[in-house]
Amino acid sequence: MSSVKTAIVGGSGYSGEELIRLLLGHPHVELAAVTSRQSAGQTVAQVFPRFAQFPLARQLRFTEPNPELLARQAEVVFLALPHGVAAEFAVPLLELGCQVIDLSADFRLRSPEVYREFYGHDHLAPELLAKSVYGLPEVYRSSIKSASLIASPGCYPTSILLPILPLLRAKLIKETGIIADSLSGVSGAGRKVDSEYLFVECNESMRPYGIPRHRHLSEIEQELSLVAAERVAIQFTPHLIPVNRGILTTLYLAPQKHFASAVEMNALADQLSACYQAAYAKEPFVRLLDQKSLPDTKNVVGTNVIEIAWRLDQRTGRLVVLSALDNIVKGASGQAVQGLNILSGFDETAGLL
Amino acid sequence: MSSVKTAIVGGSGYSGEELIRLLLGHPHVELAAVTSRQSAGQTVAQVFPRFAQFPLARQLRFTEPNPELLARQAEVVFLALPHGVAAEFAVPLLELGCQVIDLSADFRLRSPEVYREFYGHDHLAPELLAKSVYGLPEVYRSSIKSASLIASPGCYPTSILLPILPLLRAKLIKETGIIADSLSGVSGAGRKVDSEYLFVECNESMRPYGIPRHRHLSEIEQELSLVAAERVAIQFTPHLIPVNRGILTTLYLAPQKHFASAVEMNALADQLSACYQAAYAKEPFVRLLDQKSLPDTKNVVGTNVIEIAWRLDQRTGRLVVLSALDNIVKGASGQAVQGLNILSGFDETAGLL
Amino acid sequence: MSSVKTAIVGGSGYSGEELIRLLLGHPHVELAAVTSRQSAGQTVAQVFPRFAQFPLARQLRFTEPNPELLARQAEVVFLALPHGVAAEFAVPLLELGCQVIDLSADFRLRSPEVYREFYGHDHLAPELLAKSVYGLPEVYRSSIKSASLIASPGCYPTSILLPILPLLRAKLIKETGIIADSLSGVSGAGRKVDSEYLFVECNESMRPYGIPRHRHLSEIEQELSLVAAERVAIQFTPHLIPVNRGILTTLYLAPQKHFASAVEMNALADQLSACYQAAYAKEPFVRLLDQKSLPDTKNVVGTNVIEIAWRLDQRTGRLVVLSALDNIVKGASGQAVQGLNILSGFDETAGLL
Amino acid sequence: MSSVKTAIVGGSGYSGEELIRLLLGHPHVELAAVTSRQSAGQTVAQVFPRFAQFPLARQLRFTEPNPELLARQAEVVFLALPHGVAAEFAVPLLELGCQVIDLSADFRLRSPEVYREFYGHDHLAPELLAKSVYGLPEVYRSSIKSASLIASPGCYPTSILLPILPLLRAKLIKETGIIADSLSGVSGAGRKVDSEYLFVECNESMRPYGIPRHRHLSEIEQELSLVAAERVAIQFTPHLIPVNRGILTTLYLAPQKHFASAVEMNALADQLSACYQAAYAKEPFVRLLDQKSLPDTKNVVGTNVIEIAWRLDQRTGRLVVLSALDNIVKGASGQAVQGLNILSGFDETAGLL
Repeated sequence: MSSVKTAIVGGSGYSGEELIRLLLGHPHVELAAVTSRQSAGQTVAQVFPRFAQFPLARQLRFTEPNPELLARQAEVVFLALPHGVAAEFAVPLLELGCQVIDLSADFRLRSPEVYREFYGHDHLAPELLAKSVYGLPEVYRSSIKSASLIASPGCYPTSILLPILPLLRAKLIKETGIIADSLSGVSGAGRKVDSEYLFVECNESMRPYGIPRHRHLSEIEQELSLVAAERVAIQFTPHLIPVNRGILTTLYLAPQKHFASAVEMNALADQLSACYQAAYAKEPFVRLLDQKSLPDTKNVVGTNVIEIAWRLDQRTGRLVVLSALDNIVKGASGQAVQGLNILSGFDETAGLL
Repeated sequence: MSSVKTAIVGGSGYSGEELIRLLLGHPHVELAAVTSRQSAGQTVAQVFPRFAQFPLARQLRFTEPNPELLARQAEVVFLALPHGVAAEFAVPLLELGCQVIDLSADFRLRSPEVYREFYGHDHLAPELLAKSVYGLPEVYRSSIKSASLIASPGCYPTSILLPILPLLRAKLIKETGIIADSLSGVSGAGRKVDSEYLFVECNESMRPYGIPRHRHLSEIEQELSLVAAERVAIQFTPHLIPVNRGILTTLYLAPQKHFASAVEMNALADQLSACYQAAYAKEPFVRLLDQKSLPDTKNVVGTNVIEIAWRLDQRTGRLVVLSALDNIVKGASGQAVQGLNILSGFDETAGLL
Repeated sequence: MSSVKTAIVGGSGYSGEELIRLLLGHPHVELAAVTSRQSAGQTVAQVFPRFAQFPLARQLRFTEPNPELLARQAEVVFLALPHGVAAEFAVPLLELGCQVIDLSADFRLRSPEVYREFYGHDHLAPELLAKSVYGLPEVYRSSIKSASLIASPGCYPTSILLPILPLLRAKLIKETGIIADSLSGVSGAGRKVDSEYLFVECNESMRPYGIPRHRHLSEIEQELSLVAAERVAIQFTPHLIPVNRGILTTLYLAPQKHFASAVEMNALADQLSACYQAAYAKEPFVRLLDQKSLPDTKNVVGTNVIEIAWRLDQRTGRLVVLSALDNIVKGASGQAVQGLNILSGFDETAGLL
Repeated sequence: MSSVKTAIVGGSGYSGEELIRLLLGHPHVELAAVTSRQSAGQTVAQVFPRFAQFPLARQLRFTEPNPELLARQAEVVFLALPHGVAAEFAVPLLELGCQVIDLSADFRLRSPEVYREFYGHDHLAPELLAKSVYGLPEVYRSSIKSASLIASPGCYPTSILLPILPLLRAKLIKETGIIADSLSGVSGAGRKVDSEYLFVECNESMRPYGIPRHRHLSEIEQELSLVAAERVAIQFTPHLIPVNRGILTTLYLAPQKHFASAVEMNALADQLSACYQAAYAKEPFVRLLDQKSLPDTKNVVGTNVIEIAWRLDQRTGRLVVLSALDNIVKGASGQAVQGLNILSGFDETAGLL
């Protein structure tokens, strides 16, 4: 199988570092360029000693980002840049004929108005919003195949959308009253040098933040609304937890059908189980847990897998769904590589097992 | 002020250790005896080197528990024992005239049937259930003053009840649909030697457990129902988080009053603020945060304080309340000492600041 | 007993925060002023919510540092400032009649040349070096009593000097070949906002740093040389470990007496034991462990205690001594308060138990 | 390339789990059997959910260990068993014609007397000690090629021997006075259910243990003595640190040549550099750091790499060498797979990059 030439713009953050790891080990990928303003001139191995055993990492040097040069070096360009900056690179790269996989939020929203509302500034290239594909393979696989611009989903949205969408599509749950309570490891904040992310400030600490209106709400509600065919607003509470990696999300959902008896509950349980099986039994990166198991981030960290479990509570009539994933892999760089595999016609698990 | 003679039965667990710490430093308490089957014969300083700077810790030796002896040594006896075992000691100690402060769940429930349902065996002394006082000072202060048997509340219940009860009492929220999502440090599991609490199994892990029916639900719902004057059932999801200490609880509540506009929301916010102020402004161990702050367990660990914050969400019409406390202090031993202070007529903060 | 008025200059770092904690709870101290350029105008409780239960913390506001004003407010001023900056405040405060307890390295060295060699710039007030007292109470207690300027020792030096000095003084060990291998929690780096102290960079990491010539070597070797009455140079390797607090030091020492047989070893062991007993049996904050115990930072964190244990190794003829302390308490602020207690004639343990 | 059939005896501990991970991903290996008394009957995916994305992990079930059956299923058998138990399986497996790679200490020592001295019981099969090869590829590669029994080295020994052996062989350092100060993550204790390895007992703790005579000393001194051609005794202090994985070792060594001037130091530095380059420049899993870098366990965790750095200290005349590795990979299972690769004629990095 022929290989594809790739580049990473913004390779010094956590997502960029993980992209490097995945692409160095990918059987069908040639990593042709990595850019980073702060690390320009250094080899990948100098900046990330853990990759030094890969010969390429000892040769490849970070460069200043330059769209013309990148377009000559690579067919597919990953953007691991802050919101707002990504769009500045996407525009020329697309014009120069590259396929772009953007890990920022810049092309996830269909509406420039919602973008401005949640990100606080006008979108740089609103005309591209209609063109971009939301890169959640389990939902948009066929569109990804022919995309020129993939907007890779956020970590929280992935942990929330994958468990909810099949239930909403099958009308098993109400689209109102959805609550998502999420716990994130500190790498979710990126390699941002801010006193609140110092070791001593995070270790032995558990705390909520960004409530009640976290930016990721915009893409979560957009995708839920598309499936529900009406405006969905959810409650979302993120928490910062002293682990390096991982997101654990607990979802509180209201089944469409009231269940009072054990018989009714079991009938509903069968429907839920069938729904999830139909949606995900063949998905390579969705792990449906049985009724004896619960998700644990330590079982997914370092992998591209999302674990999903659920419980019906006869006492409250509610459905509780739980998911776990690695915020930097399935929540960012792994999902982006999964997108690349689909785009390039590779086995979807290539470089990801 | 004269001092009171106290004893601790079951002094080798985390709650027992914290009781020792608090009582060693308490200005009006004489710690006369500490029992522990496994540590009998050793001094407190040998078992817990961190207390060795207290002269008493170098002299006082753990003994085998013996109610007759304890009753001669102490006026107030703390029971830091597993559920079921505590009742075995409470009965003779009460008969011998001691006041008993029990940190287990044995005397928290008013109904022996509910006890059997949640704890899986018959209650040993059901006649004492009517006699015991639920030791939440902010709610039962006046009953505690004259109690002979205080059932000190659980850690999760404290983190859930203190934020909800005033709102429920003031009929500001609905008694249906309450959700409590809680995060606990690993000391919540006690000093239990089980592979799931090994360092490597907990570190870099986030996981739910005990859903949908954790034992603590029984006392939470009992207390909510008493205030609501009807049967309240809540959704409760505990999670295990890699910190030593702390509980962070996120509560999802439905205001009685619908608020659609900013004006309505502000009016409700004023009511909520007034309700909490009325309930807790003078409470020495409740810290009401303003609208710019959110709880963080690192601000309460090692103290007897519970932090409470809340936010109205105009998008969803919901009220989110958050609390943080130290599961071993306000969630166990500190609260028990607060109870002692009330019982013995000391300043309520004695030994707790 | 009358109380002493104190002030803290530089109250927003970890040492400053711990000084606030200790002085708020000190029975004979009035905390009259706390300065911090970045927090000026805010109350202590706003900056450090964990102190909010102390009424004074809700009233006292951080101010801009002003020596004239401080001298009117306080008799004793603690300086919790970076090296170099502390001297700028010490000079006017001393002239205005204050007693100064400096937690920085500015007045620890007797030689301005050594200061320049290790700190890279000329000393601002070299004339004060002769006047300052090295604030290690177990060594300089009598000088501290009448000092106007106390240079509180560094955290690593305390963990190294207290175990070695008695042995060196008694000529039980050689002054050559001393090795100190130390592990420090991340708070040792201060509240410095630098990417290498981010949670993700420290968690699940163990690493040496600052070798072979850490700045603290200068004061360690100065004090060892004074006792040995000759120039002592030691090997010192600090490591950064993912805990918030604590220093664990392992010392490799050569006994003066060769011991080949068990009999000779036991004789030497008796001498060592007697030496440590003579030095520290009555010290309130030195805990000598027996031959069955080893230090553990979790037994000293939050206290002003240093734990010391030792082992003779018949196989190698070497003496291994181990110590543990809390880098912010006995290694900084607790030791400074111990110095205040001596200076002011209080019980040496006042506010520290 | 044809593949080799392998089995793992004792697959439920941390080393066994890591062997499963490595062999599932190995391009030339068929994992034919995994045994575990406690997990017999369950699939690998049930016991270790993180491997569930590998189809084989969902099919392969743990079995009771049975040498006859294993010998029919596998050509190479890994033993990941406690000391003492491994020998019981090695004897029949070797007789039945299997090649055995033992991760325990059972066949690391050449002398049954030393085994008894350090492990406290007679060796079960002393006749096999002469036959076994110490599986340190960088030292015994040619013997490993034709071995039937490989004794895979311990984690501490690997971290100590690889940095020292080339220097000792080149007579650049003295064989006396060697000190190894090591820090280990908690997985080094295995999945042992003991209160001292509980999360709360390890987190926020740093402590030495097992001094002055840890069992691993026996194999360290054996290998050093072989190279030095005389009896070498070293000082070894292990410490337990709250990380899951990793060993960081600091070695204090005395160069043969005294260096007083910068010129002499630089000459020695050149020799040291040349010595390490000659020994390790071509080794795929040894990373020699330059004089600006220091080892950090986070750069090796999850890999089979050992990082080595060194510094000459002109002040003390000493050489300090530092190493970092993953105790479960290069310190156990990765090294065992490296041995398999050599044994089976595969590329030495197969399955390890």
